[in-house]
Amino acid sequence: MSQQINKIEVCLTPALYHSFRNDEAVVVIVDILRATSAICTAFMNGVDKIIPVATIEEAKRYKEQDYLVAAERDGIVKDFADFGNSPYNFTPDRIAGKTIVYSTTNGTNCIQLAKDSHRVYIGAFLNLDALAAQIIEDNRDLVILCAGWKDKFNLEDTVYAGALAELLLKDPRFHTVCDSTKAAMDLWSLARENPYQYILKAAQKERLQRNGLDDVIEYCHTLNITSIIPVYQDGFLVKLEDA
Amino acid sequence: MSQQINKIEVCLTPALYHSFRNDEAVVVIVDILRATSAICTAFMNGVDKIIPVATIEEAKRYKEQDYLVAAERDGIVKDFADFGNSPYNFTPDRIAGKTIVYSTTNGTNCIQLAKDSHRVYIGAFLNLDALAAQIIEDNRDLVILCAGWKDKFNLEDTVYAGALAELLLKDPRFHTVCDSTKAAMDLWSLARENPYQYILKAAQKERLQRNGLDDVIEYCHTLNITSIIPVYQDGFLVKLEDA
Repeated sequence: MSQQINKIEVCLTPALYHSFRNDEAVVVIVDILRATSAICTAFMNGVDKIIPVATIEEAKRYKEQDYLVAAERDGIVKDFADFGNSPYNFTPDRIAGKTIVYSTTNGTNCIQLAKDSHRVYIGAFLNLDALAAQIIEDNRDLVILCAGWKDKFNLEDTVYAGALAELLLKDPRFHTVCDSTKAAMDLWSLARENPYQYILKAAQKERLQRNGLDDVIEYCHTLNITSIIPVYQDGFLVKLEDA
Repeated sequence: MSQQINKIEVCLTPALYHSFRNDEAVVVIVDILRATSAICTAFMNGVDKIIPVATIEEAKRYKEQDYLVAAERDGIVKDFADFGNSPYNFTPDRIAGKTIVYSTTNGTNCIQLAKDSHRVYIGAFLNLDALAAQIIEDNRDLVILCAGWKDKFNLEDTVYAGALAELLLKDPRFHTVCDSTKAAMDLWSLARENPYQYILKAAQKERLQRNGLDDVIEYCHTLNITSIIPVYQDGFLVKLEDA
């Protein structure tokens, strides 16, 4: 294999994606709390496909067509929905073998931004090593697109980006000259010993508590409990092996 | 004095300023390499006023009116200009007592974005402590606006933001729930022992060298060599004591 040099870049929020767009690259979308962690969990528990939708209205229309729908806002499950957006909702008895609809404004926006790239993967701490191995096999440029929070930087997505970048840079075919990648790796160096405790200490607890996220923080910062890699294909998220 | 709680936020690039705009706040503009370091240096060396301009064309029009003009692009001094944009150019013999024009696309853009806020200060490592003391006296919300690099995050501005935030948070009237502020402080914790060496190691040397910045990196990461605080007022940068 040729000694191709693939660049790694970290886009800290979707609002900056215009400066990072690279349709030859693979893009990893990361929204640790909670969308991408929940999506990985759903596949672990046997979901067949996930339809990501941006708005509650779209979610409702799918419900009218008898889809199973995960939809909440501000921590409250919408009355028409089957369950909320927490990874804990995606139990095998509910979702195995099914196609479900997942309402995530930020996650869907990220997918839309990146959909013309070579491939769009869903990244989480839960599938970190498996995704790194896949990206090394892909042997292409990489953009890690952090969903952030209301167009702003957030710590948990950035720390994840640092963890992923560090794994890839062990392979000499990857390099980076991107300051946000370097910063993400330095933040990961502070967080790696205990990502959960780091985020608890560092991230804005008010944000997490206000949005009912605090019960899943520890779970969403657990490394490598699955080797499943969700990938976006024609409007659906599917397992890479099914794509 | 009442126990007012002032929030600190760090805006990592001008492209995100729409999410941070707060006209009641004081805004610190930071472009360590080189604009805000050069501006502080010019005031140290006796300049009376600085007119920041965004384009080479504007700089040229000022030159036609016999202003002293600092203007360069890609490391090369423009042929009509008196000198380039490096802090080393602003020697007392050239600028003491004068009004000069400084061409900085990114810096001027930041000033324009922030100009309706309570006050716009120019921040650099060179005047770190003095500016922190002034902001504590102002006793208001603070937005630290990092100029970044082509709308992207950069390390040196972010590390400076962390240093400034850390000083302010020693005062109980300041607090933060902003993830980028927390990240900036964590990066500063890694850089503080030797900011120059940290930036040399971490930031993209290609960017710095390509743009002829490498000769000023050490100088621009020197702490507290002046207590002068440049402030924006009606189209000019002046010393705070003259405002």
